Parts: sequence; structure tokens; C-alpha cells
Amino acid sequence: MITLVDTSLRDGMSSVSHQFTPEQVGAVAGGLDRAGVRVIEVAHGIGIGASSIQYGFAAATDVEYVRAAVAAVDRADIAVLYVPGISTLPALDAVRDAGASTVRVATHCTEADCAEQPIRHARDHGMRVMSFLMMSHKLEPAALAEQAAKLDSYGAQVIYVVDSAGALVPGSAGARVAALRDAVQADIGFHAHNNLGVGIGNALAAVENGATYIDGSLRGLGASAGNAQTEALAAALERAGHHPGVDVLALIEVAEHVIAPLMTEPQIIDETALLLGYAGLYSTFFHPAKRAAGKYGLPVRELLLELGRREVIGGQEDMIIDVAAELSSRERSA
Amino acid sequence: MITLVDTSLRDGMSSVSHQFTPEQVGAVAGGLDRAGVRVIEVAHGIGIGASSIQYGFAAATDVEYVRAAVAAVDRADIAVLYVPGISTLPALDAVRDAGASTVRVATHCTEADCAEQPIRHARDHGMRVMSFLMMSHKLEPAALAEQAAKLDSYGAQVIYVVDSAGALVPGSAGARVAALRDAVQADIGFHAHNNLGVGIGNALAAVENGATYIDGSLRGLGASAGNAQTEALAAALERAGHHPGVDVLALIEVAEHVIAPLMTEPQIIDETALLLGYAGLYSTFFHPAKRAAGKYGLPVRELLLELGRREVIGGQEDMIIDVAAELSSRERSA
Repeated sequence: MITLVDTSLRDGMSSVSHQFTPEQVGAVAGGLDRAGVRVIEVAHGIGIGASSIQYGFAAATDVEYVRAAVAAVDRADIAVLYVPGISTLPALDAVRDAGASTVRVATHCTEADCAEQPIRHARDHGMRVMSFLMMSHKLEPAALAEQAAKLDSYGAQVIYVVDSAGALVPGSAGARVAALRDAVQADIGFHAHNNLGVGIGNALAAVENGATYIDGSLRGLGASAGNAQTEALAAALERAGHHPGVDVLALIEVAEHVIAPLMTEPQIIDETALLLGYAGLYSTFFHPAKRAAGKYGLPVRELLLELGRREVIGGQEDMIIDVAAELSSRERSA
Repeated sequence: MITLVDTSLRDGMSSVSHQFTPEQVGAVAGGLDRAGVRVIEVAHGIGIGASSIQYGFAAATDVEYVRAAVAAVDRADIAVLYVPGISTLPALDAVRDAGASTVRVATHCTEADCAEQPIRHARDHGMRVMSFLMMSHKLEPAALAEQAAKLDSYGAQVIYVVDSAGALVPGSAGARVAALRDAVQADIGFHAHNNLGVGIGNALAAVENGATYIDGSLRGLGASAGNAQTEALAAALERAGHHPGVDVLALIEVAEHVIAPLMTEPQIIDETALLLGYAGLYSTFFHPAKRAAGKYGLPVRELLLELGRREVIGGQEDMIIDVAAELSSRERSA
């Protein structure tokens, strides 16, 4: 049995500059709940507490988003994303008080240590804890499993291979899941990005290697190329003989009639999205990189390939501007 | 070594109602050739000779498209699609005289017999012959391999598993390729559609099971949910350790700056596209089904699921209207 986790209302927030209203969040969450989705992630795309000039102001507070989602569902758990360094424990307590019952604690794949405090805090306060190893393509399977073992020891109940850059392919995604599966007690999850066009292919490979929690978003809504498209993911899982436990036709209905009208641009793999995956860069660099390239009159390709060479990771968004400025002045002086 | 075959200018024609001009065909073919693509398929989306009131009139003749492509490339072979019942041998001779060197003969997967005449004719006239088993999800691997063995005996040099409905997943796609690989002398090809979001995932599974010819189209341009997106497919193949023999960055350039500006709508997986894959229906039903549902005031879902139950296949497009009319009158009398 697979548990589908929908992140249209969290990762998808990045595609609409965090501008979903609480009413829209309620409509989508209600539709997902009726279709049988049992974990729905909501609030700012970068995590709770991220609404700021740096990451973009959201249309409502994290608490307001959580309340709207909780009020709209009968059975689903409402989840939030917690990024150490951006999110704070008081912010977590506030969304828990508002009804969020699951937290997803996300660190860069080499920094599992930073997840200990929020994982223990959340478990102590009765929340279900999932933990994300972001940019998982940056570590080989065995090294990734060592980080997962730490999360396991802190009490994470589900540990995710997170392909933040959309840089994995089915073989490399499946190998990482299998390594974690052998190393921890926790259940294993997989969060895809579609930059190389294999988001759902990777999710299927993850399931075949033992993952039981799979993230998706309606219409693929999410940073850069977006996520595994929930409704297509559910159909593909069914066709592959797995049981997503959802009503595929009801999911298609929500995607077509609730999410699609709210989208400001289609979720496609354009040059920027594909280069992010090809260079192995964090998906949320999508809009900042396009803006910086425009501002400094650079081809976006040149900027992204240089950021890739420097191995810039999530949290280092200020480097995008720095590198663009440097490349631009180098060109002017050449 | 994988041979990428780009069908932006043939299957992609379905996405632009067969309205690419010869100049546009030349620009795209030239870009593909410079990026290292060695087989480029062109002309009417349904096959040579299909320009008609039934299948839609193209902006130019098949011969004009072939000439434009041949003139634009240095090294690539120009290919055309031949569908027995729609295409004719004189039409094939005409495009061969115009410079097409490869023909792809396509039959429904149970009807390989119909391919014998054009395969033998094309081989006798010095053309390279690839042969398509369309709607391959309709036959189990062993039965599909029996049909492939016929094509092999007629002289097809490459035999394709064609997932016309986008209904396969990596396991079922790989199993079909493996069965053919064991049954024939010819090389094996795979042509994806992305209705379940696994076009590229299926292509990778095909390669891992012995396919060496893989179809794609820039930006995924093609019937309904489109094909495996060539530039993302090439990047994913590279990341999976296979060698597509192309310059990925040059392909991205053509996709972004030549094809994207010509697209009339983004290639996404909407309700209709996903239902076609889920119901196992032919991808070219996409526009006719949307039109018929609109005309008869039916939800497109109801029409598609009924067509799926009746196992309507390619060539039976007239059934779309018949079934829509029947469902509509049934509803009115209920």
C-alpha cells in the first residue's frame, strides 16, 4: 500500500509566488481529501516562517493556510515543511496548535544533524515526523544511508530521498531508496522533481525499491519543472500494479477544475528547468536565476552552468546574484 | 549506442493541426541535424497521404516537407510515416524521389500482415525500413513478439514497440521490448506517449531491455500528451549512462528558440490526455474527442471511458462522433 502525499499547496506555492488564498487552499485540500489523499502539505513553498523579502511574501500566514486546510478535510492529515535555519520551533508550535499533525523536516542531504532538534521537539509534542534529505543526487547511496540513519535515530518516522534538483534517473533514484531501506527502521519516501522528465518514472522506481510514501502535486505544480503530477502518478501506480489508495478520476477532476484555473503558467520543462536538472541545481533557483540573468543581460544557460560548476546549494540563493554580476563584469572587461 | 529519432515534425504536426510551413520544417530539421540527431521524421502527423478532410489538411504537401528537411540537413536521414490504408505506394515513391531515405510503416499491433507490401516495396527501392506496432499495450509481450516476427520476415530493419495510447508503464514497456529483442533479428525501437507521465521513464526502461532506437520530440510536441521530450530524454539517457550521441545543450537551444515559439499550446497532461492513457485510447483521439464532447454537450470523461470500454482503435475516428451522439441521445431520453 502506497501513501500518496500531495504538495500542490506547499511546493506548488513556488509556482504561484506563494499567492494561493486560504479559500483556494480549502478548495484544493477538500478535493484531495474526497479523492482519498491522506496527507496534504500546505503553507509557504520554502517552509513555515519563510514568508519574507528573501523568499517572497505569501498571501496569508502559515497558520491561516493550515486552518483553512484543516477546516476543509474530513480524514486527511495536514502537513507543513520545516527547514532548519528558516523555520523556528515557535512557528511549528503555532501551526500544530492550528491543526497540523505532520511535519516534514528538510535539510541538505549532508546536514542531517540539523534536523535533530526539530524532529525531537515535534515527536515530543505528538506530531508525526517525516524527514527530507534534499539534493539527494549529491551523495552516493551508502553515504546518503548514513545520513538517513541519523534521522532514524532522532525519531523520524518516514525518511525521504528528495530529488530537489530533478537530477536523478530511475536507476540512481532506486539505488538511493534501496540503500535507505536497508539502513533504517523508518518508512521510506520519495519526492521527485521533473526536470529530466522522469519525475513519475523515478517515483515508480522508488516504489519498486521499497518506498511507501510518494509525493506528488496536481498538474505537477511545483518549483521549476514541478513535481510528479499527482493524478498521473496515481494512474501510473495503478497500471504498474501498486495501490495508491485514491480515486484516480476524482483526482483528475480536482486537477482539471480546481488547480488548473489557478495556475499562472503551465508546468513544463523549458530551458531553465531542464538546465537546473542537468546541472544538478536546486529547483527553487528557477525564478531567481531567470531574473538575475535578465538583469545582468546574460544567457540563463551560462549562469546556471556556472552555478552548477560551483556546486551552489539551497540556502545560497544570494550566490545567484553574485555569480551573475561576476560573469557580467567579466564579459564587459573581456 | 542509442539512435535518437526526432518526430517533432511528424507526430508534433498533430499538435499544430499540421500547419508547420516548409520554412519552419527546415529551421527545426537544421537545428536537430546540427545537434547530432541522425533520423528526423517529417510530414503530415497521421502519415504521408493523410492530408484530407478526414485527418486535416496540412499547410504543405508531404513532398514539400521532405524537400525542405532534406535541404536543411547535412547528415541526418529524413524519414516519413506510412500507414497502410491511408498512405499509398505512389505517395511513398514521391517522397523517396524527394530525398526521404527512411520509411516507418505503422500498423495496429495485431495487423502486422498489412505491413508486408510497403516493407518489401521500400526495401526493394533501397529505403531503410522501420516498422511500428501501434497500441502495443493491447497485446501481451509474447503475442506482440509474434507480430514482430512477421515484420522481421518482411525485411523491417528496426521494429518498434509503439505506445500510441501512452498506456504503458516502465515494467510493461520493458517486458514488451525484451520479448521482441528475443524474437527478431531487427533492431528494436520504442515510441512513447506521455499520457501517464512516464514517456521518458518508459524510454529508459526500453533501452535497459535492449531497444537502441528511441523516438522523441522537442518540447514533447505530439498527439495528446505528446512524446518523450527529446532534449530531456537525451539528458536523462546521458545521466543514466547511455549515449544518445547528441549535443544536449544544442538540442535545448532548438527546443527553446525554434520549436517553443511555434507551439500553439503547451504540451501538458490535462484531463483528456490523462484519460486517453488511463483508458488505453489512441492519442490522436485528443482533439476529435474534445470537439465531439463539446458538440454533444457531454463531459469528455464520459465519452472517453465509453470509447475505452468499446476498445475503439486508430482508424475508427468516426466512432467518436457515433458514440458521442449515442450517449447524448441516451441522456436526453433518460
